[in-house]
Amino acid sequence: MSSTEIPIHEGSNPATAAAPVAEKKKEKKEKPAKQPKEKKPQQPKQQKPSVATKQADAKEIGITALKETNFSEWYTEVVTKCELVEYYTEISGFYILRPASMFVWNTIRDWFSERTRSLGVQETQFPMFLSSASFEKEKAHVEGFAPELAWVTRAGDKKLEQPVAVRPTSEAVMYPYYAKWIKSHRDLPLKLQQWCSVVRWEAKQCTPFLRSREFNWQEGHTAHLTEQQAEKEVLQILDFYAGVFNELLAVPVVKGKKTENEKFAGGYWTSTCEGYIPGTGRGIQGATSHALGQNFSNMFNIVVEDPAKKGEHIKVWQNSWGLSTRVIGVMVMIHSDNKGLVFPPRVAPTQVVVIPVGLTAKTTPEARESLLKAVEDLVATLKDANIRVSVDDRDGYTPGFKFAEHEMKGVPIRLEMGPKDQANKVASYSRRDTGEKGTIPLDEIATQVPALLEQIQKDMYTKAEKEFAEHRLVLTEWDKVVPALNSKNLVIIPFCEDPKCEDEIKDNTKSEGEQRELGPDGKPLPSMGMKSLCIPFDQPEGLVQGETKCLNPNCGRDAKAWVMFGRSY
Amino acid sequence: MSSTEIPIHEGSNPATAAAPVAEKKKEKKEKPAKQPKEKKPQQPKQQKPSVATKQADAKEIGITALKETNFSEWYTEVVTKCELVEYYTEISGFYILRPASMFVWNTIRDWFSERTRSLGVQETQFPMFLSSASFEKEKAHVEGFAPELAWVTRAGDKKLEQPVAVRPTSEAVMYPYYAKWIKSHRDLPLKLQQWCSVVRWEAKQCTPFLRSREFNWQEGHTAHLTEQQAEKEVLQILDFYAGVFNELLAVPVVKGKKTENEKFAGGYWTSTCEGYIPGTGRGIQGATSHALGQNFSNMFNIVVEDPAKKGEHIKVWQNSWGLSTRVIGVMVMIHSDNKGLVFPPRVAPTQVVVIPVGLTAKTTPEARESLLKAVEDLVATLKDANIRVSVDDRDGYTPGFKFAEHEMKGVPIRLEMGPKDQANKVASYSRRDTGEKGTIPLDEIATQVPALLEQIQKDMYTKAEKEFAEHRLVLTEWDKVVPALNSKNLVIIPFCEDPKCEDEIKDNTKSEGEQRELGPDGKPLPSMGMKSLCIPFDQPEGLVQGETKCLNPNCGRDAKAWVMFGRSY
Repeated sequence: MSSTEIPIHEGSNPATAAAPVAEKKKEKKEKPAKQPKEKKPQQPKQQKPSVATKQADAKEIGITALKETNFSEWYTEVVTKCELVEYYTEISGFYILRPASMFVWNTIRDWFSERTRSLGVQETQFPMFLSSASFEKEKAHVEGFAPELAWVTRAGDKKLEQPVAVRPTSEAVMYPYYAKWIKSHRDLPLKLQQWCSVVRWEAKQCTPFLRSREFNWQEGHTAHLTEQQAEKEVLQILDFYAGVFNELLAVPVVKGKKTENEKFAGGYWTSTCEGYIPGTGRGIQGATSHALGQNFSNMFNIVVEDPAKKGEHIKVWQNSWGLSTRVIGVMVMIHSDNKGLVFPPRVAPTQVVVIPVGLTAKTTPEARESLLKAVEDLVATLKDANIRVSVDDRDGYTPGFKFAEHEMKGVPIRLEMGPKDQANKVASYSRRDTGEKGTIPLDEIATQVPALLEQIQKDMYTKAEKEFAEHRLVLTEWDKVVPALNSKNLVIIPFCEDPKCEDEIKDNTKSEGEQRELGPDGKPLPSMGMKSLCIPFDQPEGLVQGETKCLNPNCGRDAKAWVMFGRSY
Repeated sequence: MSSTEIPIHEGSNPATAAAPVAEKKKEKKEKPAKQPKEKKPQQPKQQKPSVATKQADAKEIGITALKETNFSEWYTEVVTKCELVEYYTEISGFYILRPASMFVWNTIRDWFSERTRSLGVQETQFPMFLSSASFEKEKAHVEGFAPELAWVTRAGDKKLEQPVAVRPTSEAVMYPYYAKWIKSHRDLPLKLQQWCSVVRWEAKQCTPFLRSREFNWQEGHTAHLTEQQAEKEVLQILDFYAGVFNELLAVPVVKGKKTENEKFAGGYWTSTCEGYIPGTGRGIQGATSHALGQNFSNMFNIVVEDPAKKGEHIKVWQNSWGLSTRVIGVMVMIHSDNKGLVFPPRVAPTQVVVIPVGLTAKTTPEARESLLKAVEDLVATLKDANIRVSVDDRDGYTPGFKFAEHEMKGVPIRLEMGPKDQANKVASYSRRDTGEKGTIPLDEIATQVPALLEQIQKDMYTKAEKEFAEHRLVLTEWDKVVPALNSKNLVIIPFCEDPKCEDEIKDNTKSEGEQRELGPDGKPLPSMGMKSLCIPFDQPEGLVQGETKCLNPNCGRDAKAWVMFGRSY
């Protein structure tokens, strides 16, 4: 089955259309490269046009949509052309995670697992199916997921006596066994997590990483004797999540608590990391760490005898916390640009690409050989310094074409070495994030390149943090709210925390496409109302309890806290 | 939902029955331990009986079935009571992988991934579903799996237009994209693997690790320009698989090629690692690395232009290779004993457990404190030496009870420290595999314990290898075959490699329960006929081509090779 035969089921989704097109271009681009090196005589004749074609296509196969004017199309091009995902055109709403995104995900997995292990969290693997029996039993909890459950009703050609659903999350799968394993306070705390994929058959249009019908995540489920122990862990985990964003993905987040409307269904309270997408001015939920309280231990009867009061029983205090591949989408939306991906160095599959330059028809074989040898030594030095380095010495591709390709793929540092560099015992570098150029003495490569990578990581975070800070407006006048949203800000306002008032605020902040983000059709998208993102742990000054009122003019209740609102994903 | 309420759906399977019983005992055991330490006055009065109860139960909660006389019941007890798996009683044929087995699996994952990366294999993640459309298209291949496919037909309460099946393996999921991605010989080799779970809704009775309806595995899928490159990789991967068995699990295997009857459906040829289970005298397939030839590139049209002959096209040469959690079951069956698990040190979650001993009512508080301090130092030393160590200083449990528990859990080395050891500046050790005891000077702990762990790893492999070698009989007389099988041997015989002859051999080697293995009912199991396990790469002497005949008396064809046959899993 060839690519062109792959049926497109995505309907109105522009992304799938884009992908095959991109592929066709690519195909066109590579054809000229196909003439064998062996056929020496033909080469000069054929190489020129082939390079020319590549040069021309270099632009075409690059990112064509602009981040500023057509964000969603730009995003689709970046994640597909830069080979983070491939659309799974056989089934709508599913995506193939390609090696570059798996590299990021596995880097996060290692970083996070190391930290959770230090808390005594162990890894487990529960079945992917939930029986309809447990589903009936825990309806209260599972109900919220019911419309999105994928039901297996047949095995081979036999109908199953009891249909089974693919897990949308694992509380109802796991907790019957927590009840079985936890017999005494000595069995506490019980701390387990699993890395798996879950299925939520979304009706809404899907977007790679942000919303898909199957996604990879880590889900932690723990049980504690006391509320204090449970609460402590909820916040420790939230800090780890913030660390994934800040330290690995160079993404700033605001930590806080969800309002009643936005907390995990069936939970006690939810803590969250909230991000900001400058391109659309929208907030995005990064990762959530839930205190479940005793709601589930009550439902699943997870009980131990009170070590302090013989004969009395305690329902255990539980937490669940999850981080999904969505974080990769957030990283892409924030850092990438019109040339393509920009990888933060710590999660970049390739941190440095080395490209020999300045070789022309006039270059003597000796000079060529000596330059390639110098490039080889440079790469060896970088490998010894534990840098993830690749070299691009392909024939038949001009440096310009190679530059464009590795820029598109988001490699943080490009090192060029030509005869001049070699003579001056330096390598010329170019930063992907800023475009800044310079040279590094060859005898300082092993120290300066790692330092530069760390600088890039730091600068990318600082830039994003500044942008987020500038678009987080603390407002005390209702009339400024919608204009603020329309100029791509999140707002922090005094809020009463009443669920109905929150719904009302959402309704009263819809606006008619004034927001600059354009849809696939090029028209401005209608702008949704704002919803509460979180009650930031870090509260601004100036809210006086019993005095400051909720900002919603129709409310009139006292404000309980500063709450961050925004249009969001 | 409490353990006792969990419905048992496993029918005749004794395992699920065993588990809850074990749990109830455990519950009984731990209750007495529940009185709070705070209530000092009561403690002396209550502690004695509580310990007594534990002592009594220590036997009961241990492994009750004997490996020698009731292998299958013994295996079920070991995997459940030693907490490798929990039966997922909501849905028959599914198991929960508990932390101990996930530790083994992740150790294998890290070891294997490091080696495949060195071959340029990258990680990917494809969707878990196969569309019925692709299913129809690739019927030829998928057909074999058809009776075991789990079909999702509903999302929420909506019927899907096209039902989708959970992947039983990913050839049909992945290869359409190989056709899309591979446009030029420059895109070759393409080497991807994913770690995931797959679903095969088996009709046969399931057994933890060996046969389950969902299992975790690694599946590699690669494409090459030439047959030679593909073949080289097939054998490199097979060597890695053999390394997982030999170097990590201390399990000997025989490498070879599958016969036509036993090779991967739709493949070209299959290489395999075959293991041996002394307890039942059966062979077991360990892991397989398949040369797919051009069968799939033909089916999926994965074609590149011949770099040597412009205008001509080459169908790529493909391989697929997989290793599953089955390997954990093989490790357990071979090494564990009537006391429980025996972990090879390299995959043991806990390599050393340290237990303070010799503390009695007479011990002075000072002496107790000084001993516990010495134990603390010992543990610190081991941690610094990168040993996975735990300490069992629980009150209210006698050393004897602790010994039994950690033996059951398979910890390779137990270190005891009592006042005498402390005085002599030594720790007393006990090996789980041999029971051998001795002492180690405290100032040599950091070197001698790692050395002892390596010795245990080596000895466990050597013992298993000797046992396998003794039960691999090279036979040249047909009459000796069935008796050999009945005394728990595999046989290596001259064979014509004809599929029909292979079927005939299987029929003619059934025997009526002479084999000593007993079923759950305690009666000898009827003995299946033998099937071919592999054509060993390492061929015995003495087979003369064109002269030596196939050993099947009704055959009369020339023998092509020595082939290993046996009853098998």
